[in-house]
Amino acid sequence: MQQGETRQPLVANQEALERIFHRPENEHSRMVLTKYMNQILFGLHDFLRENVGITEEIPLKTLSERFMSSRIAHSPVKKLTEVISEIIEELAPHAVNVSSPYFVGHMTSAIPFFMVHLNTIVTALNQNPVKLETSKVVSVYERQVLAKVHRLIFNRDEAFYQAHVQKPESTLGSFVEDGTLANLTALWVARNRLFPPSAGMAGVEQEGLAAAMGDRGIRRVRVLVSELCHYSIRKAAGVLGLGNSAVVPIAVDQNNRMSIPALRDTLAALRRDPETAVLAVIGIAGTTETGTVDPLGAIADLCREYGVHFHVDAAWGGPVLLSQRYGGLLQGIEKADSVTIDGHKQFYLPMSNGMVYFRDPAAMDAVAYHANYINRPGSVDLGIRSLVGSRSATALVLGSALDIMGAGGYALLIDHGIETARKFAALIRRRPMFELVTAPELNILTYRLVPEEYRDTGKGMSAEALARRTEALNRINVQLQRLQREAGNSFVSRTTLRRAGRPDTVVLRSVIMNPRTTPEILEAVLDEQEQIYRQRIAGVAECDPGWSGAMDA
Amino acid sequence: MQQGETRQPLVANQEALERIFHRPENEHSRMVLTKYMNQILFGLHDFLRENVGITEEIPLKTLSERFMSSRIAHSPVKKLTEVISEIIEELAPHAVNVSSPYFVGHMTSAIPFFMVHLNTIVTALNQNPVKLETSKVVSVYERQVLAKVHRLIFNRDEAFYQAHVQKPESTLGSFVEDGTLANLTALWVARNRLFPPSAGMAGVEQEGLAAAMGDRGIRRVRVLVSELCHYSIRKAAGVLGLGNSAVVPIAVDQNNRMSIPALRDTLAALRRDPETAVLAVIGIAGTTETGTVDPLGAIADLCREYGVHFHVDAAWGGPVLLSQRYGGLLQGIEKADSVTIDGHKQFYLPMSNGMVYFRDPAAMDAVAYHANYINRPGSVDLGIRSLVGSRSATALVLGSALDIMGAGGYALLIDHGIETARKFAALIRRRPMFELVTAPELNILTYRLVPEEYRDTGKGMSAEALARRTEALNRINVQLQRLQREAGNSFVSRTTLRRAGRPDTVVLRSVIMNPRTTPEILEAVLDEQEQIYRQRIAGVAECDPGWSGAMDA
Repeated sequence: MQQGETRQPLVANQEALERIFHRPENEHSRMVLTKYMNQILFGLHDFLRENVGITEEIPLKTLSERFMSSRIAHSPVKKLTEVISEIIEELAPHAVNVSSPYFVGHMTSAIPFFMVHLNTIVTALNQNPVKLETSKVVSVYERQVLAKVHRLIFNRDEAFYQAHVQKPESTLGSFVEDGTLANLTALWVARNRLFPPSAGMAGVEQEGLAAAMGDRGIRRVRVLVSELCHYSIRKAAGVLGLGNSAVVPIAVDQNNRMSIPALRDTLAALRRDPETAVLAVIGIAGTTETGTVDPLGAIADLCREYGVHFHVDAAWGGPVLLSQRYGGLLQGIEKADSVTIDGHKQFYLPMSNGMVYFRDPAAMDAVAYHANYINRPGSVDLGIRSLVGSRSATALVLGSALDIMGAGGYALLIDHGIETARKFAALIRRRPMFELVTAPELNILTYRLVPEEYRDTGKGMSAEALARRTEALNRINVQLQRLQREAGNSFVSRTTLRRAGRPDTVVLRSVIMNPRTTPEILEAVLDEQEQIYRQRIAGVAECDPGWSGAMDA
Repeated sequence: MQQGETRQPLVANQEALERIFHRPENEHSRMVLTKYMNQILFGLHDFLRENVGITEEIPLKTLSERFMSSRIAHSPVKKLTEVISEIIEELAPHAVNVSSPYFVGHMTSAIPFFMVHLNTIVTALNQNPVKLETSKVVSVYERQVLAKVHRLIFNRDEAFYQAHVQKPESTLGSFVEDGTLANLTALWVARNRLFPPSAGMAGVEQEGLAAAMGDRGIRRVRVLVSELCHYSIRKAAGVLGLGNSAVVPIAVDQNNRMSIPALRDTLAALRRDPETAVLAVIGIAGTTETGTVDPLGAIADLCREYGVHFHVDAAWGGPVLLSQRYGGLLQGIEKADSVTIDGHKQFYLPMSNGMVYFRDPAAMDAVAYHANYINRPGSVDLGIRSLVGSRSATALVLGSALDIMGAGGYALLIDHGIETARKFAALIRRRPMFELVTAPELNILTYRLVPEEYRDTGKGMSAEALARRTEALNRINVQLQRLQREAGNSFVSRTTLRRAGRPDTVVLRSVIMNPRTTPEILEAVLDEQEQIYRQRIAGVAECDPGWSGAMDA
């Protein structure tokens, strides 16, 4: 990042601006940019393999020291080609190659190369779907894409879609930045429908939660969700003024699915308290930690019985509906009142894209906002019913991808993930060194390494001895995950499963969505873990925690 | 969108998938893609001028009829090259060419061509800054960019930035999707700091607003902001459970700036009520409708006196700080507790990028969330203190743009906008047919067309006659803006200025930020408006409202 000593200083003047705004400054610059853009656009995965996350591990502290300066210089510091060369040659090596088939730890993975082309076009057009005047056909196109995914979820009849797809007053769904904001939007709508305007009160959105609850004699609002829910649910309850304590965790069964008896008991108990209102029950289609799907149909039936909003967090699992083979795993989702799906997860879109859908096209009326210059009452501006204002036209990417891939193309990806995860589970079960903790229902599983001396839990082991064993295994698996991440060959994540009545368990977590991830690669991941354990953990004093370990443990 | 009759049907199978995921299917496909990508990456503005928004006006209804189908086909519908050709050749002509120098109506404009290159790289790397494990150096880089903008706003000393820029426990700011969510985040933090955990109460985020207010004997929470505030403030109050009625509009003075006497009176009156708490006062640096800047220093002083959180909505005006000539217009912003800035506005980033900054690096502790698999306590994951979870690494775009442009490069754009707006105001003042309604303080002005017969307001005109005149002028200007938009040569927006004690006034609104917008172009815009008035409005019965007019009026 040192500048050459003989070069001309860069200046900001009108001529430089004119140049910099419109095209590369000269033929050399154009050549350099062309080279990189060609690599990215036409050899994405090779480009990423060769350039990203391949250097030796650098401690975070060392890396941080390079990014300390906080001044914005008056004159340009670098030319465009220098900036781009540096991103690719100096930054990218210390980024994370999420597109590697060995990166099976998080819900971020390889994306099809054409997604980059599509996003490039979206960037160039720079439309803003908040209003028709800055998006026009893109707003119309977006409505169609929303209808397609709505239909995938709710499967209402042709007449329904003909009536609502382009009807300005109807809202089938809404694009937001991510699943967190999609869940927030769903609960925002549910909150406002729980406390609508009434004779003496203008509704919660207008008068606030304290007044709305007071008006109805409600002292507590509750949201019921499996204890394995995503933290965005608690966050949404916090943001909406309900408070985290409004979120009541419902125990899961042995398969990590919400226990229906527990839900029924809780609903019945809450109904007996006239000062408590249940705002929503949330079912999860693909829990973040274990990938399991709650019994959506049974939850839906209870919600109907109790007259409660039923939200499904399908941020992860939603696109499984595209698979003829496994779509049935989500049965019951069509009875939901609202559904979250993330585009940047199993629709394989680039970061980031969240969506929320409503069965009732009038549901989002409960959160409509107008302004004097846009979003005027009666206009077709999409910003009227939306948590966010200005946003990118990601509908173009999703709509195009659906055309290019077809449901069938997506199904190949989905099926590959689920089936490879099952094969991975079989591999884990075959190895004495590992214990499968949660089997994959979709394409996520958790497991842990259990060294021989910890394998015998013995019937008569004291509670104290059992706790010591859990503690030791937790420590081993924390270390193992960290050392493997630092070695940089492969990556699984870890989490701590916290379930009522069971000890907190540290597990290794694997998410299989890269179509190039094979059972052979997963064998190699296990081999490496065994090796790391034998060479770096067994019998060794606690290791140096490394780049983020100290703060991450 | 008809498929050729002799072509092979597209199928989704493993081989097709392997192909589609990784590279263009053949040399022809690669050539087509190369052609378009070259046009976009190396001739952006020519590309947009030639391809976007150039066809004759199509009624929205006709356009909608093309996007009715809501089925996702099982097999791929189109090849990648077909999809991209169609976007460019069939969709783009009906999008809006926001990059035209004649498009001076909204806060969306031309972006420098290199922004597309940068966003393409960000898309390809697909990092997710929610956690270090999916972003690593990008998280560190983002912290630096946040520090740079924080310093631009708050200008704290070098030791402060050295201490906080890379300190995991410190949060100088946060990236969100747009200004709406930035304002929401700021008020979320302010709400939680108003109702922190106390002896008997675990804080509003945990226990909810009703309990928190009850605990303190508070019945009403208020947010004070100029009557010209962005609608996102009301929305934020609604989302946060405060209710829209919590937002108290403070009258503006003759220059459309918040009246300090009115603010002082309101604060004093509210203090006398022990059941009312003031959550925040919001100053605006660049109102959406008129571009004016509230007296930030005076507001800050009152906020200190009353111990109230001071938020500045500088979504529009923030980057004016980069201008040596006009940065002083924002004096007092450095005393704010929190500040919103939009990257996709005057930082000229692609859609969409919002940011919120906090003077106190510990402020966002009030909204910290953890999870078992990421964002664990003590980790450096940026997702811990953030409204959103997964998101795009837009910090790379902003940081790179600052390096390429320098403050000086941005200042040229900013200064051009402000000075061209002033010239435009002078042009309007010179023409008898137009009335300048709000002069530009930054680069936004409003005006209206006033035909000769409405020019004499006469001292003795009755209130009723005055109201009829306003009504007639409003109708004329609504029509004028619509007809000009439909003609497709140029675009100004319109809004209705609603200010206490003055009649609601429809105005034409012009936002000057495109460096190619010249006084000559603005003359042409006025010429066209005069011509439209003479040919299409004067003496003609009310026109057909056109594509969105009927619903938009």
